[in-house]
Amino acid sequence: MLLPVSTWQDIERWLTKSRTIVIPIGSMEQHGPNGFIGTDALCPEIIARHAESLAPDDILVGPTFNVGCAQHHLGFPGTITLRPTTMIAAMTDWTESLMRHGFERLYWYNGHGGNIHTIEAAFSEIHARRSFDPRGEDNRPGLSLKRRDWWDFRDVMGLCNKLYPVGHGSHATASEVSVTYHAYPDRARPEVEMSPKIAPNGKIGDAVQYRRDFPDGRIGSDPTQSNAEDGGKIVEAAAKAMLEDVARFSA
Amino acid sequence: MLLPVSTWQDIERWLTKSRTIVIPIGSMEQHGPNGFIGTDALCPEIIARHAESLAPDDILVGPTFNVGCAQHHLGFPGTITLRPTTMIAAMTDWTESLMRHGFERLYWYNGHGGNIHTIEAAFSEIHARRSFDPRGEDNRPGLSLKRRDWWDFRDVMGLCNKLYPVGHGSHATASEVSVTYHAYPDRARPEVEMSPKIAPNGKIGDAVQYRRDFPDGRIGSDPTQSNAEDGGKIVEAAAKAMLEDVARFSA
Amino acid sequence: MLLPVSTWQDIERWLTKSRTIVIPIGSMEQHGPNGFIGTDALCPEIIARHAESLAPDDILVGPTFNVGCAQHHLGFPGTITLRPTTMIAAMTDWTESLMRHGFERLYWYNGHGGNIHTIEAAFSEIHARRSFDPRGEDNRPGLSLKRRDWWDFRDVMGLCNKLYPVGHGSHATASEVSVTYHAYPDRARPEVEMSPKIAPNGKIGDAVQYRRDFPDGRIGSDPTQSNAEDGGKIVEAAAKAMLEDVARFSA
Amino acid sequence: MLLPVSTWQDIERWLTKSRTIVIPIGSMEQHGPNGFIGTDALCPEIIARHAESLAPDDILVGPTFNVGCAQHHLGFPGTITLRPTTMIAAMTDWTESLMRHGFERLYWYNGHGGNIHTIEAAFSEIHARRSFDPRGEDNRPGLSLKRRDWWDFRDVMGLCNKLYPVGHGSHATASEVSVTYHAYPDRARPEVEMSPKIAPNGKIGDAVQYRRDFPDGRIGSDPTQSNAEDGGKIVEAAAKAMLEDVARFSA
Amino acid sequence: MLLPVSTWQDIERWLTKSRTIVIPIGSMEQHGPNGFIGTDALCPEIIARHAESLAPDDILVGPTFNVGCAQHHLGFPGTITLRPTTMIAAMTDWTESLMRHGFERLYWYNGHGGNIHTIEAAFSEIHARRSFDPRGEDNRPGLSLKRRDWWDFRDVMGLCNKLYPVGHGSHATASEVSVTYHAYPDRARPEVEMSPKIAPNGKIGDAVQYRRDFPDGRIGSDPTQSNAEDGGKIVEAAAKAMLEDVARFSA
Amino acid sequence: MLLPVSTWQDIERWLTKSRTIVIPIGSMEQHGPNGFIGTDALCPEIIARHAESLAPDDILVGPTFNVGCAQHHLGFPGTITLRPTTMIAAMTDWTESLMRHGFERLYWYNGHGGNIHTIEAAFSEIHARRSFDPRGEDNRPGLSLKRRDWWDFRDVMGLCNKLYPVGHGSHATASEVSVTYHAYPDRARPEVEMSPKIAPNGKIGDAVQYRRDFPDGRIGSDPTQSNAEDGGKIVEAAAKAMLEDVARFSA
Repeated sequence: MLLPVSTWQDIERWLTKSRTIVIPIGSMEQHGPNGFIGTDALCPEIIARHAESLAPDDILVGPTFNVGCAQHHLGFPGTITLRPTTMIAAMTDWTESLMRHGFERLYWYNGHGGNIHTIEAAFSEIHARRSFDPRGEDNRPGLSLKRRDWWDFRDVMGLCNKLYPVGHGSHATASEVSVTYHAYPDRARPEVEMSPKIAPNGKIGDAVQYRRDFPDGRIGSDPTQSNAEDGGKIVEAAAKAMLEDVARFSA
Repeated sequence: MLLPVSTWQDIERWLTKSRTIVIPIGSMEQHGPNGFIGTDALCPEIIARHAESLAPDDILVGPTFNVGCAQHHLGFPGTITLRPTTMIAAMTDWTESLMRHGFERLYWYNGHGGNIHTIEAAFSEIHARRSFDPRGEDNRPGLSLKRRDWWDFRDVMGLCNKLYPVGHGSHATASEVSVTYHAYPDRARPEVEMSPKIAPNGKIGDAVQYRRDFPDGRIGSDPTQSNAEDGGKIVEAAAKAMLEDVARFSA
Repeated sequence: MLLPVSTWQDIERWLTKSRTIVIPIGSMEQHGPNGFIGTDALCPEIIARHAESLAPDDILVGPTFNVGCAQHHLGFPGTITLRPTTMIAAMTDWTESLMRHGFERLYWYNGHGGNIHTIEAAFSEIHARRSFDPRGEDNRPGLSLKRRDWWDFRDVMGLCNKLYPVGHGSHATASEVSVTYHAYPDRARPEVEMSPKIAPNGKIGDAVQYRRDFPDGRIGSDPTQSNAEDGGKIVEAAAKAMLEDVARFSA
Repeated sequence: MLLPVSTWQDIERWLTKSRTIVIPIGSMEQHGPNGFIGTDALCPEIIARHAESLAPDDILVGPTFNVGCAQHHLGFPGTITLRPTTMIAAMTDWTESLMRHGFERLYWYNGHGGNIHTIEAAFSEIHARRSFDPRGEDNRPGLSLKRRDWWDFRDVMGLCNKLYPVGHGSHATASEVSVTYHAYPDRARPEVEMSPKIAPNGKIGDAVQYRRDFPDGRIGSDPTQSNAEDGGKIVEAAAKAMLEDVARFSA
Repeated sequence: MLLPVSTWQDIERWLTKSRTIVIPIGSMEQHGPNGFIGTDALCPEIIARHAESLAPDDILVGPTFNVGCAQHHLGFPGTITLRPTTMIAAMTDWTESLMRHGFERLYWYNGHGGNIHTIEAAFSEIHARRSFDPRGEDNRPGLSLKRRDWWDFRDVMGLCNKLYPVGHGSHATASEVSVTYHAYPDRARPEVEMSPKIAPNGKIGDAVQYRRDFPDGRIGSDPTQSNAEDGGKIVEAAAKAMLEDVARFSA
Repeated sequence: MLLPVSTWQDIERWLTKSRTIVIPIGSMEQHGPNGFIGTDALCPEIIARHAESLAPDDILVGPTFNVGCAQHHLGFPGTITLRPTTMIAAMTDWTESLMRHGFERLYWYNGHGGNIHTIEAAFSEIHARRSFDPRGEDNRPGLSLKRRDWWDFRDVMGLCNKLYPVGHGSHATASEVSVTYHAYPDRARPEVEMSPKIAPNGKIGDAVQYRRDFPDGRIGSDPTQSNAEDGGKIVEAAAKAMLEDVARFSA
């Protein structure tokens, strides 16, 4: 089920059988010369929606949390970021809203490495509210918060490494660009060339430093290898892996 | 141009000719027995994307700010809200990100009446930072923040009133539901019946009061009249009206 | 009853018969060449105190919330503003204080158009705290928050339009200035001339833009028409209208 | 000059000769069986306005910051408080507004012992913004923030002790009640009796503890001695002492 | 008992006999030419640990809150400060943590005059949360928050005045420096000379003003008189006085 | 150099040759039946001070940030935590203080796995302030923020695994307890027995869940193996590794 195109009665029924919801969470940030700015939000959204199409009764997909932590990309036009504390506040509000309805297991399906720390800090912030409260130890509902990065499954990483044995890199990778090309084939940019072919590696600080060290935005990657066909394979593998993981999480 | 599926170089080029961006902003909240929870986020997104397809060189559409102010709907499962102060913080971060790149005209294209006050309060918060600062009076870039509700154009309201002369109402209206049915025809719910046919009117307080006074979530509306065909007409009219308004705003 | 000059036992007695309080709320901002900086705080205070003098047993008037949202007037000396988020925090504290005592109906009697959005956002913020909380659905006390602008009554607007058929405008209006001259006749400024006689209209952004577009502070108004006698009539009409409205609100 | 009933041009002129403003700051809290809830806001306001009437060209009096830190009085109906952090935010906004216009010396004229710590903490918060900033060491405008409690002058305390040698106490004192009776003689409560005549002393924690330990709200005082005539003498002495202190502060 | 080097079972046992904890709280700020930057955190820590060594069963000493309010010292390298609002947030979290375990009496043993206002404001902030809440009046646990400055005991001040009858001063005093030399004799700086011998007095604003008015950091003091032997005497007197005060507080 | 026992002139001199500071950062949380509550703050402090004793001219050690993110341990008496947002605020203040003096490289030497995400989120928050600011791209000072966990060096982990090949675990480990026993040998608890010998593993949520799943506080560890002698070896290895790492970081 997809929450944004469901009715409240649908969700009421869902809650009679499950307390789990999957929330795609990403970022809006430059992805090099041929990657979309929305890549990190689109990837988990694309995969989650594909998973839902495979098993509509087994998974509830919420709206996409589409702007995350991307301050280091602000040197590149189009990037939009939240401050970590704003992101924690927003995730807290989403979580409290869902808890109000009876959800107890929130599976944040993440598309951006730069979100990881803030997502986990948000979990601590949310749990802290409960931990400080001496009341309710006995009878309050449970709350499980889990983050899973879409690429961080053995089958998914194995496939990506097989498809792009050279120049996978860590930002603006061929695998994530391929996933978006699969979903938006008309917007693919096969013509874009890059130099050097494989981008440099390095450390991440603020936006000025990042643009100086990574002039076209990529880190360690050669995304000229991206194509929609590969993307389809990755989406397939990732959707299956995620469905199994969500089933375990809900058990 | 659609920012989420563009590259940063695309946005860099856009900024050489325009300082304007359109940001769909909505809500994730119950919309009665046959309306989608995402209706208020989907409507401006659907219309803005249609407008972009009509005039891709004339408009840049940002990501959708998809969760807004919906605390009064929390009595209905699936609703997700931000607190107003969280929404102000997030809108501030979006705006500062865009200003960093040189955007000077942000057109927040709104799909939710309950967002109006907080959007405008966020504008004041953002302007206040600049107003307090005595530096830069002379040479700092301008900043225009504008909110426009998608239905609040003469041609759009005229069409909606013509299509639904009876029972248009103010929440979960036939017009907004039709817009979403136009975009997601497979998910339309023509079979849903409602009683009373036209929902009651009343005042809005917190979630407990709302659910007590409006048991199925609607206010004053009869959305059983919704259909995809009407939705297409509304989208067409709204996209045209918005394109003209954005052109005036950018001038 | 006027809360600031009552004792706590007076308020304890009031609460045995009513759960309503009226809170004048305004702003401290420039009001053109002949209007007082405190105009928007003084008007609701003056009218509310007059109402109280007419019906001391029917209305409880709280202290005046005298500094509001006026960032756009910061280009003019003497203006004092709160950021919207500060105002939301302060209104929340006032409300929680009053709820602690048993007040359930807060009537914010507003004197400033620029406060409207933030007042309403504050209401959402306050209600959201309750809406997130799944406890207490059954037995917690009610809470009604209402904003009413002192000029926004048919009889009041009718009178103002009759007194000033030309050049009423929207900021530093003859009607509001007259109200303050009625209360502070010694401080009236009949000698001040203005050019142009009727100020321009336009849009409001930050303080720099405002002062550039509205050089003497007025918007669309000709307040040289102001006089204490008119002010007395307006106060009379407004006090009556407000008393009736508060009675309906409390019912 | 009184800022709320002055025009922006008046303040512009004031700033050509002085960078100082006096801001009465108080509280809205119970003051025992015969004291007004607004006592602590009214006292500095009454005295400051009297001072201004004595020397209108020598002093500029701003609006009254009328709700302060009174959480410990919340057990008594009518009390309204800000949280300390809200008060710090509001005082910061007032200060930044005034600095925007060129004020460099803010004299917070205080009427409430419970405000002292938070006012001083707000000063530190405001100074900290400047202290963190390594820019501007050379050429930024100065900023002096001063708090002075209206009773804390040798001549004022001497007079109060002479008038009320027994049972002056520390909350709901005869001296502060007399000041308000002087300004609002029609609302005086000479008929109220109290038992014990002199209230107990003790420590202050939260609202529950306070009401338990001080059942009628007073601490150590016998305010049945209050009268308007004494109040007039105190106002006279306090206004003179404050005018001299402000002159020193501005020098 | 020293909390940082105790086990949780030790604290569990402590709570069966006492609800009190002592928390040293200080600052990290310049202390003139021969004083340590950590002086204000070290002094209460040194004295509290000595007290604990005298009566390990009678006192529980928590970790040292070692960075406080020192914005005015930021002109001197090494100074670290919290903003007052950050300090209030941190003290609130410490307090809520300790309340979670059953502590009801928190004795903040302070080493820095500049902390006083913010510590007391934090107490109000913490109490306000409880005061706003109408529930729990009957059965919630008590909460006593107390600040005591290590030097502010008759015996301690008497000793300091006797040891340093001339040039004690108020910042970077011989007494506090001596306390740290007693604990860290190898790091004493007997060789440092100062000019003038006794530092000037004056007012405190922001960091720029402070460094301009107090060029070597001292206020009114002559800390060349400091020595470890004196420090030992002061520690002895202060530890005894504090133990007695904590016993009274816990009673 | 140890900042807390240095003078401001010492730090001024340090800054002429280095822009680096090492800040031990830990937590105050239960560490099982024989570990100190302060273990995670003590370990980096102990090692950093030992490093400083080895090379006092090569390293500047700041005060210990001694309370961190430990909400999940609040079920065990003595644990003290900050909320992640409070920790971000405090780390921001520390960083801004140090930047004020000219520090450009902050090496946060961490002793607690539960701090990792929030420390990194704080880095993003701090960098975001700079990234949003379009000014200063050219000439502002650099800022490098680095977190390093004391155990996360090849030589340190190798030694720990050699010393405790069985039952090292992840919370309340023999290696960290040994480090504290080395520094506080008199407080070692060789007599404590545990059952089961090796604690269970599992997931971490809030405080109620944690205490239910890990009844004595340990996770996966057998800290009965702890002893001061091992601790000495670990401290030696860790101090060397850190000194080399800091030298690389400063280069």
